[in-house]
Amino acid sequence: SIRNLAMEKIANNMVFPPYSCPCPGASCKWQGSLSDVMGHLMKAHKSITTLQGEDIVFLATDINLPGAVDWVMMQSCFGAYFMLVLEKQDKFDHGQQMFYAVVQLIGAKKDAENFIYRLELSNNRRRLCWEATPRSIHEGVAQAISQSDCLSFDTNHAQLFAENGNLGINVTIQHVNQM
Amino acid sequence: SIRNLAMEKIANNMVFPPYSCPCPGASCKWQGSLSDVMGHLMKAHKSITTLQGEDIVFLATDINLPGAVDWVMMQSCFGAYFMLVLEKQDKFDHGQQMFYAVVQLIGAKKDAENFIYRLELSNNRRRLCWEATPRSIHEGVAQAISQSDCLSFDTNHAQLFAENGNLGINVTIQHVNQM
Ligand SMILES: [Zn+2]
Ligand SMILES: [Zn+2]
Ligand SMILES: [Zn+2]
Ligand SMILES: [Zn+2]
Repeated sequence: SIRNLAMEKIANNMVFPPYSCPCPGASCKWQGSLSDVMGHLMKAHKSITTLQGEDIVFLATDINLPGAVDWVMMQSCFGAYFMLVLEKQDKFDHGQQMFYAVVQLIGAKKDAENFIYRLELSNNRRRLCWEATPRSIHEGVAQAISQSDCLSFDTNHAQLFAENGNLGINVTIQHVNQM
Repeated sequence: SIRNLAMEKIANNMVFPPYSCPCPGASCKWQGSLSDVMGHLMKAHKSITTLQGEDIVFLATDINLPGAVDWVMMQSCFGAYFMLVLEKQDKFDHGQQMFYAVVQLIGAKKDAENFIYRLELSNNRRRLCWEATPRSIHEGVAQAISQSDCLSFDTNHAQLFAENGNLGINVTIQHVNQM
């Protein structure tokens, strides 16, 4: 019956919740299954660079651009894909801006718990670093950013580490034994 | 002559600039020579705790106290004294507060350059750390704080790492070869 079909559809949705496009900002409305996320990114977001390796540099260019800006790239290691996001927000009055950097696994939350990511800014004699469990793209990064559960720093900090308006963030992914 | 005495006094002041009390906040007006700073602190600021060792925990209690608050302690290692400062400021509107943590050497700038300090907040699976050259008390910490040239984090970050309203900051001092 129609009723049974509707119920079956709901049950399927609960077992296989649709994933949204993990790109920050709400401009892309794509939704689909986890196994289709990478295909979507490669087809609809061709401009996103992917680097291979556990230890890479995420180079955000022109960090002094005015307004809210997102920088995005992909890192591939341990047979998995991670999306690195740097977001700049006009957070406060007085022209103060905040940067938020966070990593999300293209995968489920239980898989994300097998990894730790480390973000590091450094120059001559200063170093700022943040380590945490990656988010799953099922959770997304918006909540992590709004709760500062990520690397967060202000414009002054960014200037300490930037060169010619570009900011290099060292990203290291580690595989950890499940706790 | 009186004139010569006056000129000699000015010359002495330029060779041995007076140091101000390194306690944060402007309440103590003490000034004197570098060799008298520790004596002043021990006599006039008896409540400041000193811990011995290169690797200690700076425990800031009641970080949820309203308003601007400073937490101060001393760390003694490598035959030197370091003052650890955690400052909370009502930085922005909307009730947002920022924390700033920084280390200053009871010593001159050229001596401070022989050290690196590392501040680390950590819990189960998150870690935030900052490494830099200590300030000299001749420079003070106010400028480092206003320029975010220190460990800075917001109230959300503090809550991630606090336990029962207390925040433990791991402080490690390293002696480095002069560059
Ligand atoms: Zn998309
Ligand atoms: Zn670290
Ligand atoms: Zn004093
Ligand atoms: Zn570090």
